[in-house]
Amino acid sequence: MPGRRSRSPEEGGGKIADVPAASLPSTIVAASCQLELAIGQVDANRAAAAAAVRSAADAGAQLVVLPELTPSGYVFESLAEAVALAEPLDGPTVRSWSRLAAELDLVVVGGICEAPPDGRPRNTSVVVDRDGLRAAYHKVHLWGDEPDFFTPGSLAPPVVDTALGRVATMVCYDLEFPEWVRLAALQGADVLAAPTNWPAEPVRAAPTPIEVVRVQAGASTNRMAIVAADRCGVERGVEWTGGSCIVAATGHLVAGPPPQPGPAVLVGELHLGLVKDKRTGPRNDALGDRRPELYGPLSR
Amino acid sequence: MPGRRSRSPEEGGGKIADVPAASLPSTIVAASCQLELAIGQVDANRAAAAAAVRSAADAGAQLVVLPELTPSGYVFESLAEAVALAEPLDGPTVRSWSRLAAELDLVVVGGICEAPPDGRPRNTSVVVDRDGLRAAYHKVHLWGDEPDFFTPGSLAPPVVDTALGRVATMVCYDLEFPEWVRLAALQGADVLAAPTNWPAEPVRAAPTPIEVVRVQAGASTNRMAIVAADRCGVERGVEWTGGSCIVAATGHLVAGPPPQPGPAVLVGELHLGLVKDKRTGPRNDALGDRRPELYGPLSR
Repeated sequence: MPGRRSRSPEEGGGKIADVPAASLPSTIVAASCQLELAIGQVDANRAAAAAAVRSAADAGAQLVVLPELTPSGYVFESLAEAVALAEPLDGPTVRSWSRLAAELDLVVVGGICEAPPDGRPRNTSVVVDRDGLRAAYHKVHLWGDEPDFFTPGSLAPPVVDTALGRVATMVCYDLEFPEWVRLAALQGADVLAAPTNWPAEPVRAAPTPIEVVRVQAGASTNRMAIVAADRCGVERGVEWTGGSCIVAATGHLVAGPPPQPGPAVLVGELHLGLVKDKRTGPRNDALGDRRPELYGPLSR
Repeated sequence: MPGRRSRSPEEGGGKIADVPAASLPSTIVAASCQLELAIGQVDANRAAAAAAVRSAADAGAQLVVLPELTPSGYVFESLAEAVALAEPLDGPTVRSWSRLAAELDLVVVGGICEAPPDGRPRNTSVVVDRDGLRAAYHKVHLWGDEPDFFTPGSLAPPVVDTALGRVATMVCYDLEFPEWVRLAALQGADVLAAPTNWPAEPVRAAPTPIEVVRVQAGASTNRMAIVAADRCGVERGVEWTGGSCIVAATGHLVAGPPPQPGPAVLVGELHLGLVKDKRTGPRNDALGDRRPELYGPLSR
């Protein structure tokens, strides 16, 4: 079983506070906010996010997940546009989410276009709670034209000890690398909160979008709950999947994906006991049954 | 991209013949034989398998996959029973499947309880074609009481160059380790043929059994077709899922799982061009976008 790691937000990792397991709730209520956003409409996008967070809190949510690149939108036409829409980690979006987290006693995870102190923007997911910014993760696996706009990260998904359990985060295409999802689990994540912008596939897999299938498999093989918040609508010709979902550690869908396209706040209950117990049978353990001594070729 | 590896069947790997890619068909027809078998009824089980192989061939199949431990059945009560039902790699089952493969020009993949020259039985998947036995793989990740009956394998899934493309195999619970499925893809597998005996979950995931969801995700994240052949019925109180499926390299279901429990021969077409091309977008590649330098903790 993995040991606890301590890293600072500046390193891309999460601060590990000492929250004794005994003090954790047995269940938590998670929300996935599926938003329709518009490229460059930063104020409107922030307002839509804030409204969704409040709506989720009204429904009892304690952990609220927002899409990738929420304030800026996704389909940049140039690096200059991405730079113009980027903001620092102490900028208005993180301050807004931190205020909401403090006021409503939430853990909020969402994506921003981050302006680092130097270099090109980062495709970043932040974890904030009542104490403010807890972790900032830089997307490691970049999709499509993202290399034109973002410097990729090179640090593992952070795992943050919160009042709700250990919350990890990664961004969208990262989820397509089972190695990466596994790393979050090996580092002890209870819930993986994943901001996404899933472009719609030419042929949608039936009965469940393949993006959601991958999330279910990631949850199931790791006995880790996963909350993915997706976009909906169309942005500069890119149609989004609208595949937001809340998935239990068994891989079963707790909520989503919404049957109809459009904005939605999904809410569902996650059982931390199920997540903490990696046993999948009397003699089996999802992580303990791994044969890491045979997995060497994966890192060569 | 992975290089070609040459290993002998005795090493648990597949012989790599020189089949030029240009000589491969653009599509192949695969079959998954979902069988109802009975513990210890070796003759009847072999007959059921042979009948299913013939039925698949009649439907045009070129690659035929059979369940885990087809001749013996699965739910052993003792090591002595497993030993009594074990047979060598040149025993009657492999001889039967080799004869069928030669007569009908098939690649056949199926599971047997193997009696090795020394030691306890192995939970083995064999790959046979018109040239006879091409590879024998020993299940690496053991489920439930299997450690009481089987010595686990310690070699990677073999990848066998056949007239239909590069066929890899692993067994049932192995599929729950994304690392292992990835290794088959990294070794260049076009199609992963997986004999399984999936015990039914207490609560079946809707709308698709979670075992099938994991196979779809494995196919999708690796751009590799997967054919899984499952059991149906009940054996000594264990109900089988009946989750046999044929999955394209996109993760989309080509055939299965059967909506009703019971024996079935699923047949579906797989596009080798889709498998050979790991590009998932103009600037993306399912294997090339991996960041192996960051995956070190997976093998520690």
